[in-house]
Amino acid sequence: MRLAVIAGDGIGPEVVAEGLKVLGGVVPDLETTEYDLGATRWQRTGELLPDSVLDELRGHDAILLGAIGDPGVPPGILERGLLLRLRFELDHHVNLRPAKLYDGVRSPLADPGEIDMLCVREGTEGPYVGNGGVLRRDTPHEVATEVSLNTAFGVERVVRYAFERATARPRRHLTLIHKTNVLTHAGSLWSRTVEEVGAEFPEVTVAYQHVDAASMFFITDPGRYDVIVTDNLFGDIVTDVAAAVTGGIGLAASGNLDASGTNPSMFEPVHGSAPDIAGRGVADPTATVLSVALLLEHLGRADQARKVNAAVAFDLSTRDPQQPVRTAEVGDRLAALAGG
Amino acid sequence: MRLAVIAGDGIGPEVVAEGLKVLGGVVPDLETTEYDLGATRWQRTGELLPDSVLDELRGHDAILLGAIGDPGVPPGILERGLLLRLRFELDHHVNLRPAKLYDGVRSPLADPGEIDMLCVREGTEGPYVGNGGVLRRDTPHEVATEVSLNTAFGVERVVRYAFERATARPRRHLTLIHKTNVLTHAGSLWSRTVEEVGAEFPEVTVAYQHVDAASMFFITDPGRYDVIVTDNLFGDIVTDVAAAVTGGIGLAASGNLDASGTNPSMFEPVHGSAPDIAGRGVADPTATVLSVALLLEHLGRADQARKVNAAVAFDLSTRDPQQPVRTAEVGDRLAALAGG
Ligand SMILES: CC(C)[C@H](C(=O)O)[C@@H](O)C(=O)O
Ligand SMILES: CC(C)[C@H](C(=O)O)[C@@H](O)C(=O)O
Repeated sequence: MRLAVIAGDGIGPEVVAEGLKVLGGVVPDLETTEYDLGATRWQRTGELLPDSVLDELRGHDAILLGAIGDPGVPPGILERGLLLRLRFELDHHVNLRPAKLYDGVRSPLADPGEIDMLCVREGTEGPYVGNGGVLRRDTPHEVATEVSLNTAFGVERVVRYAFERATARPRRHLTLIHKTNVLTHAGSLWSRTVEEVGAEFPEVTVAYQHVDAASMFFITDPGRYDVIVTDNLFGDIVTDVAAAVTGGIGLAASGNLDASGTNPSMFEPVHGSAPDIAGRGVADPTATVLSVALLLEHLGRADQARKVNAAVAFDLSTRDPQQPVRTAEVGDRLAALAGG
Repeated sequence: MRLAVIAGDGIGPEVVAEGLKVLGGVVPDLETTEYDLGATRWQRTGELLPDSVLDELRGHDAILLGAIGDPGVPPGILERGLLLRLRFELDHHVNLRPAKLYDGVRSPLADPGEIDMLCVREGTEGPYVGNGGVLRRDTPHEVATEVSLNTAFGVERVVRYAFERATARPRRHLTLIHKTNVLTHAGSLWSRTVEEVGAEFPEVTVAYQHVDAASMFFITDPGRYDVIVTDNLFGDIVTDVAAAVTGGIGLAASGNLDASGTNPSMFEPVHGSAPDIAGRGVADPTATVLSVALLLEHLGRADQARKVNAAVAFDLSTRDPQQPVRTAEVGDRLAALAGG
């Protein structure tokens, strides 16, 4: 397995080290190449994602990313120039975000019940395309626009992926989240696509909710969800709500998938670079380890993925919530459990 | 006080009746005119908002709206043709949504702490403008767009309103919620505007959060918020999250304000028409009554608004949560408390 590693900024290198510890324990043939990208490189050299690096990345089976970001960098630079550029250049049209409440994990909800959902967020369209502009900047007549682009091609493939995932799960339930009553053009494309693709999956039951209502039900009745499919921006928001109710982004894993397999997929914890705790060895690497499990699953190594997931589930159920997290200790425990 | 009443569909008429009961008890000079608008009228006549009705509405001091909607109406018809048309035609640029956890109300959060925030959502711009389209509909080459329009004029006035509200509250704290790292054009306009207007309000402390992070903090640490200002679509979502953690949309009130006073402002509960429980007398009218309090406050009747708010606070703190809600009983209690 040829893995590109982008450790990134802040706690990125710390959590990635543990992810690799666990991965190395279950994958004997692991070959890693590290790429120095992120805030630090940009501040030093002005470079975000050189074309040569992008080309090299393409030669790998997968990418593991830690975290990118620093409060000293103006908003948008690293996101548009590096993180989103990777997603767009590598056609990561499926942004996969499971949200499961593990035994032993405290939810902020009083009565969370069982939560086990799989959010399938579109990754290459919607308001994320960077299509917008500013007219008469810094005048009282300034106008700023953002355009959400949605294509049949782009919506169909992510909806199909979501149905395929739903079909393979016991509950076989899919919820489309959008705002069809206000964003009528994009909403209609999404609804029609779910209807059409859904006809090929008669065993999957389908529900629809507006994004505002869904954000509420994620809090009042999260157990009703199985697989969710939604657009790029709604997915950004609702997956953080889902992460919050299942114990926080310290545990939230994600995969940016080119489901066609043409380009390497990229796996990353949902949390950011957390500069306030960087370098202290107290960041929780669990989200990175769960992202490693998604990576293994994506590369067809289902047995190894299962081992990593089982290690995390066991570790979370036996952790002492009073004990502060030590990054390397968690990694050691998970590596021992998964590799054993 | 000349009040236009749009009771609407489903539970709309039931909750509005109680709202009027309470309002009538504190406002001796109340004159109401009822307007038959909503799903039922559309289904009967095809009419949504005749120009003559819109003209008449303009002649009132305020509008009280119950709920609009029916599952039999395709998405977007009533929203774009009636609800949003009212907001746009009457220049309701401030969508005001308090979210307070009242004593006696059960939050779905295990440890909610004190929650008392005031969300100021922009109401006439952003992705709600209806600027979008579809190309090659129903073909594999379909493209659907939605354009978010943001103007210096539109952003400045709602940001200024939010600062004014923040200045009048004990904590004097304002949080801007946006997604400046992805929606860089609109985000920059919003950030710069908050900075510029904020310079006139040095006593107000200002924070910024991305909408995804904020949606999480609304759940894990809602007590940190005081006044929030955000765009139309983000506001739609985060105010529902705020409503969820403060006990649900059964209690969420809102005002659609033309803060300039040129047009009548419109007050409505955040919940929908809830056809499943319509006609049974079990809808909670509290959100409507709280909307009535916003109406009174907006019309400069602060004493009467205080009475209505105090009635709701008292009633909620003494309600038996085991007892099912009876719409008219709640209204009777609140009217007696507020009018007494
Ligand atoms: C950092 C940002 C560009 C990114 C996004 O909005 O997708 C992040 O919030 C995420 O969810 O991965
Ligand atoms: C019904 C719909 C158009 C509306 C909105 O999106 O603004 C509703 O969700 C609300 O929040 O008032």
